[in-house]
Amino acid sequence: MKITIAQLNPIIGDLANNAQQILAAAHQAADQGVRLVLTPELSLCGYPPRDLLLRPGFIDAMGSTLTDLAQQLPEHVAVLVGFAERNPTAGDRGGKPLFNSMALLDGGKVQRIFHKQLLPTYDVFDEDRYFEPGDQVNHFELAMGDGTSLHLGVTICEDLWNDEAFWGQRRYPSNPIASLKAAGADLIVNLSASPYSLNKQRTREAMLSHSAARFDVPILYANQIGANDDLIFDGGSLAFDRSGNLVGRAQSFQPDTLCLTYDPAAKDLQAGDLVPAITDTNGEIWSALVLGVQDYARKCGFKKAVIGLSGGIDSALVAAIAAAALGPEQVLGVLMPSPYSSDHSVGDAKALAENLGIHQTTLAIGELMAGYDHTLENLFADTDFGVAEENIQSRIRGNLLMAIANKFGHLLLSTGNKSEMAVGYCTLYGDMNGGLAVIADVPKTRVYKLCNWLNEQLVQQHNQSTTPSPQLPIPPTHPAATEIIPSHILTKPPSAELKPGQVDQDSLPSYDILDDILERLVQHQESVADMLAAGHDFQVVERVIRLVSRAEFKRRQAPPVLKVTDRAFGTGWRMPIASRW
Amino acid sequence: MKITIAQLNPIIGDLANNAQQILAAAHQAADQGVRLVLTPELSLCGYPPRDLLLRPGFIDAMGSTLTDLAQQLPEHVAVLVGFAERNPTAGDRGGKPLFNSMALLDGGKVQRIFHKQLLPTYDVFDEDRYFEPGDQVNHFELAMGDGTSLHLGVTICEDLWNDEAFWGQRRYPSNPIASLKAAGADLIVNLSASPYSLNKQRTREAMLSHSAARFDVPILYANQIGANDDLIFDGGSLAFDRSGNLVGRAQSFQPDTLCLTYDPAAKDLQAGDLVPAITDTNGEIWSALVLGVQDYARKCGFKKAVIGLSGGIDSALVAAIAAAALGPEQVLGVLMPSPYSSDHSVGDAKALAENLGIHQTTLAIGELMAGYDHTLENLFADTDFGVAEENIQSRIRGNLLMAIANKFGHLLLSTGNKSEMAVGYCTLYGDMNGGLAVIADVPKTRVYKLCNWLNEQLVQQHNQSTTPSPQLPIPPTHPAATEIIPSHILTKPPSAELKPGQVDQDSLPSYDILDDILERLVQHQESVADMLAAGHDFQVVERVIRLVSRAEFKRRQAPPVLKVTDRAFGTGWRMPIASRW
Repeated sequence: MKITIAQLNPIIGDLANNAQQILAAAHQAADQGVRLVLTPELSLCGYPPRDLLLRPGFIDAMGSTLTDLAQQLPEHVAVLVGFAERNPTAGDRGGKPLFNSMALLDGGKVQRIFHKQLLPTYDVFDEDRYFEPGDQVNHFELAMGDGTSLHLGVTICEDLWNDEAFWGQRRYPSNPIASLKAAGADLIVNLSASPYSLNKQRTREAMLSHSAARFDVPILYANQIGANDDLIFDGGSLAFDRSGNLVGRAQSFQPDTLCLTYDPAAKDLQAGDLVPAITDTNGEIWSALVLGVQDYARKCGFKKAVIGLSGGIDSALVAAIAAAALGPEQVLGVLMPSPYSSDHSVGDAKALAENLGIHQTTLAIGELMAGYDHTLENLFADTDFGVAEENIQSRIRGNLLMAIANKFGHLLLSTGNKSEMAVGYCTLYGDMNGGLAVIADVPKTRVYKLCNWLNEQLVQQHNQSTTPSPQLPIPPTHPAATEIIPSHILTKPPSAELKPGQVDQDSLPSYDILDDILERLVQHQESVADMLAAGHDFQVVERVIRLVSRAEFKRRQAPPVLKVTDRAFGTGWRMPIASRW
Repeated sequence: MKITIAQLNPIIGDLANNAQQILAAAHQAADQGVRLVLTPELSLCGYPPRDLLLRPGFIDAMGSTLTDLAQQLPEHVAVLVGFAERNPTAGDRGGKPLFNSMALLDGGKVQRIFHKQLLPTYDVFDEDRYFEPGDQVNHFELAMGDGTSLHLGVTICEDLWNDEAFWGQRRYPSNPIASLKAAGADLIVNLSASPYSLNKQRTREAMLSHSAARFDVPILYANQIGANDDLIFDGGSLAFDRSGNLVGRAQSFQPDTLCLTYDPAAKDLQAGDLVPAITDTNGEIWSALVLGVQDYARKCGFKKAVIGLSGGIDSALVAAIAAAALGPEQVLGVLMPSPYSSDHSVGDAKALAENLGIHQTTLAIGELMAGYDHTLENLFADTDFGVAEENIQSRIRGNLLMAIANKFGHLLLSTGNKSEMAVGYCTLYGDMNGGLAVIADVPKTRVYKLCNWLNEQLVQQHNQSTTPSPQLPIPPTHPAATEIIPSHILTKPPSAELKPGQVDQDSLPSYDILDDILERLVQHQESVADMLAAGHDFQVVERVIRLVSRAEFKRRQAPPVLKVTDRAFGTGWRMPIASRW
C-alpha cells in the first residue's frame, strides 16, 4: 500500500488555491497508484490562520470548500486534509469555539474527522485562543480495496511532541501516541505545521525515531513548507520504520512529495527516498531566510525589493538573500552616503551590487541633512550634536527608501540584525523601516559567519571541487566576481557612520560577548547570576539587560522578523513596555 | 467586620514599589480597624506581566517579595495579594509552568494560596500561555479575633465571568461561584484586573448583581486601576449584597479604597459608599484616554509630550487629552505647514494651542519637500505626483517630531483615529509615528462627539449651571477661551492636506457609513451578507474589507493603541499579513 506525503505551501486564507494544491497532489497520487495522501496541519487554510479563525464566514467557507474538495478527488484516493471547524457544544458545555481538525476524504465524502489533542500555546503559538482540545483517540481502518485494511493512528503536529521518555518531562498530561499504540494502530501519521528554527530538524528526527522505536510503530510525518509572515516552515517531511530507522526524507525549504510503501506482512514501512539533510548550519539558515523573503514577497504580491546599502555587512547579507530569493534583476540597492560616510562604504556597497548583479542607485543625503538642520535651527539652538541628529540621518534614508518603495511598488527589506534589535542600536522609522525584517533574528556574529560561508560557496562553485547542494539557493553572481560579499566588508570594524569616526564598539560590548549574553537572556532566560557564573562581567550584563528592556518600544514597532532561532523578537516575544524589572 | 478594597495602580514588574503600595493600604486599613484588605489580581507584579513571567528570576523574586511583605504587615490585618508561582508538578504530570494565584497573608505569614480557575485566552488575554488552571474550590475561614469567623470564597477575575444564566451560554465548563456557594461561602471576593472598554462597567454591574442575587451571596469586586501599555484598567470596584443590590462603588479611573462592613447576623454586606457612576459615554472614554496617556508617560519616565498639530480634529483631541493628562505646560504642539496647507489649518492649530495653553512652535516643511524632490528627481523623472510624494510630507513631519522627541526627551503621541488605522488612511513612519497611539481605537465619528462634548464641558463650567464631575479631568483652558476645540475644526471637512484641495471623502466613504461598516467588521465579525442586510452597499463593503485587509502591514508596526472598544487594533487583533481572504 502506497502513501504519499504532499508537502504543500499554502497561502493563508486562500481556500480555493490551497484546495487546488491538494487536488493536484491527489491526482498525481492517483497516477502512481497511491491509496492515501497526507497533507499538513490546517492544509486548507494554511498555518497559522490567526484571527481569521474568529470570522464565522471564514469557518463556513472552509467547511464548504472541504465538501467540494471531497467530491472532486479522484477515485480510490483518500486524503487527510487539515481544516478548522466549529465545536458544536462550546456554548452549552463551555469550551473553545473551534477544533483544529483533520478530515478523511474518501469516496467523494468527508468520512471521518479527527481533533488535535495537544494545543501549543507558547512562543509563537496561540492555539488555546481558538481551539478546544480533542478528547478522542484518533484512529481508523482504511480499506485497501482488496478486502484488507490498514489501521491508522492520526496525530496533528503537537500531538507527537509529548513523549516524556524523550524529553525527560511532560508538557501535557497525555501522550496520544501511547493511546494509539494501545488501540492497535499499525501506522501513525503526523500532520504538521512545524516552523523552522536552527537545528530543529535534527530534534524532530531524533524525537520521531525515538517514539517509533519505543512504541514499535512506523511513523509518517508530513510538514508544511513555505513562509507565512515571520514563520518559516521548512518541510523536510519524514518516515520512520517501527525500529526507528529513517526510511524517507523530503526536501527542506521547498515543496515536495514523498511516497512510501507500507508492507502489511512486515507491518512496517519499506525504505523509500532519502533526500540528504542539510548538515551545514549556515546553509540551513541561509535557505530559511531566502524562503522567508521569497514567500513574503510572493504572498503579498511583490516582485521587486529595495534595500538601503550602507557598505556594511548587514545590508550586504540582506541584498544577497534578496538576490537569491527574487533574482538580482528584481533587487534595487540604494546607496545614501552622508558627509560622515567613509569612502570605503560607498566603494564596498558598489562592489557588492556589482558582484550580485543587482540594480543600484545613489542618493546623497547631505542636502537633506542641511535642510533638517536649517528647519530645526531655532528650536535646537545651543544644543549639542547627539542622538537626535544621528537619527535624522537614518530617518532621511528610511524616508527615501519608502518613497522608492511607494513609487515603484517595491518591497522594502530592513537590514537590522538581532544584536542591534535587542539593544536598540537601530533607529525607529529609520533603518528599521521595511515590510520584513530579514535578519532581525540573526545575531551579528552569525551575520559574519553567513557572509563568509556565502563566499566559500562561490569559491567551491568556481573550483568545481564540490558542487554546492542544489538545495542551497546561492545567488547568481557576476561572472568576474571572485567573492559575493566584498572582503573589505568582512574585515572593517562595523560602524553606523552617523558621526565622524564612529564604530559600533564605542557604544556596545564586542559582538562575541554581546551575542553570548543576548542568547542567554533572550533564548535561555538566564538570570544575572547564571551569566556571571559563565564568566561575564557584572556591569556589562547589567547594561545589556537595561538596553534590551529599554528598546522594547522600538521592537514593538518593528516589521515581522523572520524567525530562525528558538526565540525571535516578534509574535513569540511579548514583553510589556511601561514596566520596571 | 470591615473589609477594604485597595484599588491600586501597580507598575508592571516593579515588585518593590507594588509591595509598598499594598503595605501602605494595609496600614491605612489597620488605622480604620479593618480585618481584611483585598488587592487586585497579580497585584504584586501588576497585570499583565506578559513574558516577564517566563523569567525564572522574576518568579523567584515575586516569591521572596511576598514572604517579606507578609512579615511587614500590621497585626490583625489580613491581605489577599495576587502573584504568580510555579506549578510544581508541571514537568512530571504535564501542565503549564505557573499558577495565577492569590495569597492570604495573615499573622506574618503566607497562610493560604488560591489558584485562578478560569483563564481567559481570547482578545487581549493570553493566560493559557503561562498558567495552569486551578482545580480546587477556593475558600477559607477568616478568624475575626473574637472567636467568630467568616467563610470567604475567593475568585480571581475571570472566575466570576462564566455565569451561564447571565450570559445565556458558557465559556468554560465550570462556574466557580456555584461551587463556592455549595461549599458554604458567606461572602465571595473577586480580585480582578479587568480592562476598560466602552460600557463594560455597566456589564460588570449587571453581571455581578445577577450572580449575587442568583446565588444569594454578597460579592466584593476589587479591580486594578491604571494603564499598562495598551490596556486601561478603570477601577470602579464594587460591592453587592446578597439580594444583588449595589452597596458600594469606588472611583473609576483613579486609585481609591472602598471600605465595606459585613454583618454576620444578617450574613450580608451593609450599605457603604457609592461613588456616582460616570453615565456619559464621552466622559467615560475621555477619562480612559487621559489615564492612558498619563500612566504610559509616567511609567515610561516621560514628563513631557510632543504632538504634531495639523489644524485637524484628531490632533486637536489628542492635544486636549495630553494637556489634561500631563498639564498644558508639559505639552508641545508642533505646526508643520506645507505649501498644500490651508490658511485655516495654521490658524485653527494656533487657536487650539492658545485655548489649551500648551507650547507651540512652527516648522514649515516646504524646504524639506523641495529637498526630497531634488534628491529624488532623477529617479522619479517622468512619474506623476502620487502617494509616494504625499507620504514624503507625512514622513518629514514624523521625522521632525521624532527629532524633537529625541532632542528634548519628549514622548511623541500619535494622533491617528481608528477609522484611519482600519483602512490604512495614514502614513507608516509618518503620522503613525509615536510612542503611544492615543485615539487609534476611537472611530472618527466618536472623535467628533468627544470634541463637541469637551466644548460643552467648558460651557457648563463657565455657566456654572452644573459643575463638571470631579471624576472628569477636563484640561485647564485659557481664561478668555470660550471653547476648547475651535469650532472651525469641528465644522470644516476633514482633510490630510497632502495635495491641493484634498478632502478625506475623496478616498473614503462618509465617516458615518465607514464607521458603521468597521464596527460590524472589526468588533462584531459580521459577514458581507450581514452588512448588506443592514442596508450597506455591496461595493462599499467590499472596498472597505479590502482596505482593512491591505492595511495590516501598517497596523503591525503601529505604537500601542489605547483600547477603549471591545476590539482594538493591537494585542487583541492578530491578523496575518501575507494572506488572502
